[in-house]
Amino acid sequence: MNLTRFEQTLQEMNRIGALDKGVTRLAYTREEQQAREYFVFLCKRAGLQVRIDPCGNVIARREGRNPQLPAVACGSHLDTVIQGGRFDGTLGVLAALEVVERLNEKGIETEHPIEIISFACEESARFGVSTIGSKAMAGLLKKEQIADLKDKHGISIETAMSECSFDFERVEQAKRKKEELCVFFELHIEQGPILEQEQVHIGIVSGIAAPTRLHVHVQGKASHSGTTPMDLRQDALLGAAEIALQLELAAKAEQDQGTVATIGVCEVKPGAMNVIPDLVELKIDIRGSSVSSKAEVLRKLMHAFETVRYERGLEIEWHLLSDEQPVLLKQEIASSIEHSCKKLGISYRHMSSGAGHDAMNMARVWPTGLIFVPSADGLSHHPDEFTAMADIAAGIAVLEEEVMKWAGASESAASLQEITAKGWI
Amino acid sequence: MNLTRFEQTLQEMNRIGALDKGVTRLAYTREEQQAREYFVFLCKRAGLQVRIDPCGNVIARREGRNPQLPAVACGSHLDTVIQGGRFDGTLGVLAALEVVERLNEKGIETEHPIEIISFACEESARFGVSTIGSKAMAGLLKKEQIADLKDKHGISIETAMSECSFDFERVEQAKRKKEELCVFFELHIEQGPILEQEQVHIGIVSGIAAPTRLHVHVQGKASHSGTTPMDLRQDALLGAAEIALQLELAAKAEQDQGTVATIGVCEVKPGAMNVIPDLVELKIDIRGSSVSSKAEVLRKLMHAFETVRYERGLEIEWHLLSDEQPVLLKQEIASSIEHSCKKLGISYRHMSSGAGHDAMNMARVWPTGLIFVPSADGLSHHPDEFTAMADIAAGIAVLEEEVMKWAGASESAASLQEITAKGWI
Repeated sequence: MNLTRFEQTLQEMNRIGALDKGVTRLAYTREEQQAREYFVFLCKRAGLQVRIDPCGNVIARREGRNPQLPAVACGSHLDTVIQGGRFDGTLGVLAALEVVERLNEKGIETEHPIEIISFACEESARFGVSTIGSKAMAGLLKKEQIADLKDKHGISIETAMSECSFDFERVEQAKRKKEELCVFFELHIEQGPILEQEQVHIGIVSGIAAPTRLHVHVQGKASHSGTTPMDLRQDALLGAAEIALQLELAAKAEQDQGTVATIGVCEVKPGAMNVIPDLVELKIDIRGSSVSSKAEVLRKLMHAFETVRYERGLEIEWHLLSDEQPVLLKQEIASSIEHSCKKLGISYRHMSSGAGHDAMNMARVWPTGLIFVPSADGLSHHPDEFTAMADIAAGIAVLEEEVMKWAGASESAASLQEITAKGWI
Repeated sequence: MNLTRFEQTLQEMNRIGALDKGVTRLAYTREEQQAREYFVFLCKRAGLQVRIDPCGNVIARREGRNPQLPAVACGSHLDTVIQGGRFDGTLGVLAALEVVERLNEKGIETEHPIEIISFACEESARFGVSTIGSKAMAGLLKKEQIADLKDKHGISIETAMSECSFDFERVEQAKRKKEELCVFFELHIEQGPILEQEQVHIGIVSGIAAPTRLHVHVQGKASHSGTTPMDLRQDALLGAAEIALQLELAAKAEQDQGTVATIGVCEVKPGAMNVIPDLVELKIDIRGSSVSSKAEVLRKLMHAFETVRYERGLEIEWHLLSDEQPVLLKQEIASSIEHSCKKLGISYRHMSSGAGHDAMNMARVWPTGLIFVPSADGLSHHPDEFTAMADIAAGIAVLEEEVMKWAGASESAASLQEITAKGWI
């Protein structure tokens, strides 16, 4: 399998936003816009019809023999976190393009149209809300819900979008009718260590574990670190430490359900060496594809809150930041992907996704398949994010197989004359 | 006891640097300088000879009958932390002035001269180093040791001092000869809850527990909060949580020795909700007046480091920020203060000081007494810092008693004519 073209395109795309460390293409910035423009250029060169919806999603269409049929869509996103990696999102967009280029080269026509979608603003890194483009396309986005979002410089999402020439007022019009598409596929890196650990090439995702997120304030009393005896302290940090360790225990007890819990944000105030901390803010993220398992972790977390309140005299306030339901992907699509893996002799396993993806929004409306390839060392959202080309090759092969199957590929290839006439090469 | 004058002076002083919350008179700022100028005005009005040394310490002298005798000194500092309280430091300076004003009013002369000292830069809040003025006076300061200090705006201590017209180059000349003083007293708020809890008016400090401070880096591995199974994580925050709780246990085991341990600074990186923390920076402060008890806490802390390293696969690096020796105050002075309390019928207890004070530097050269009055709720370095006037009255009475005793007060008061001639009133 010759991946030279794909590798070069990937490299070229990742020059955009490449600073000293990793790749930074935050949503609705000049960098994301440049990535969009480069992608549009590539699609047009491959003979695709390109349009950009009011939300900034790029939709590149390869017409089918029967243009009335719903399209087979595949894609992902081109935006990244700050100092992110070269594969998260970008892989899925460029892999879809690679599949189309192969069809073009081989002169393979399909009954259904094929669409490559590059979703806008998948990462929450800039505005705190993720998968805005796919939410909009699936009709899950209300303009008012995001109208107040601002980035850390105080720039509103409306301003940011309008600087990219997108129309915030019309953002809901990115919604597409159910009958426009028949299926959606996303190829993505796992962003976790499981495939690598098990030396498996492909992860077939059965469900996406949406997060339950809490914002917690542990309130104690500031006092002098030298003059306050140990038994007269209300040290908010020690309360937070107990909560963190209890939460770990609770999640470990649900390990077989794949449930995980993390405290990623912990801010300690006033943060002076000679003052006992009086306030700790925690942001807690609990994920799992089993609703009951997540609930059990949450129950134990509440119990830890009570214990810390009672034993340390600390005040604990919390509120839910989000409490999303896990998304189950259609078994029919997973079976189809499994079939392709077997046919191609590629190792696979079924698994759930701990991270959110555009696929989870698309799955609310359309049958959806999410295909994982391994992440070296489980690393993602990091400059060192890496997936070996052998794994990428396997992923693209499976994606190609699925696209051909669902789009109804012609058995016989077109002639060079026909290919040229269609502008494919 | 009429404290109207004292209260008014305290109130007036605390108008300087009073912003929306608490009092902010950082060292070598316009606010500290204004406080210095107001104090100089008050001293001159009370007939004292005032000089300011190259470090910014104010020395106000009431001559004795025998000017050749070493002076009895008392004082504290007028600088504060950011949004500090009205009593920390300021109480000790203005109480010393109150004592002198009472002697003036009563026309009491003393054999020894009396000096009120307002030390510069006692708080570490601006430059990270505390008690600079008293270190200089006691000859403990080397210019090079502080030459590189900068505040958070990048202003060097040299620039800050020169803006107040002090000469950094001559800072070591603030050192005084041993024979210039015979004793030093500091009245200070406890900054802890013990006196209030025990309903005692006066704390007689036997030793000052200098801190041992460590800067610790707990290094794990960042990975995605949703996609990394619990058993494949190297979560730096969980390692830090264990260290915090183990340190608490270690200090509680030394409770009877008065040893305390605190983690006041805990910074968690990268600090994103969906990323497992890979780095936690801790700043640890261990204090006690027993060297062996502090060492025992440190030993257990090292053991906690090893456990976390071994069980969680985290890297732990640490270095000592400071490791000062506790300062023992002269038993002779403590006994003298005890005697004064008994004579005046004021309740007292002996205790150690968990916080550092100018007295600890003065004690390296001169016999020193440190007298505590209660802090409401143990609160200090806080806008709500409070000490009741009844407690302040007790403190000033004891200080007055000591000053008269050590300075050799005349038994008979001077006549109004003599008082007026000396410019005392």
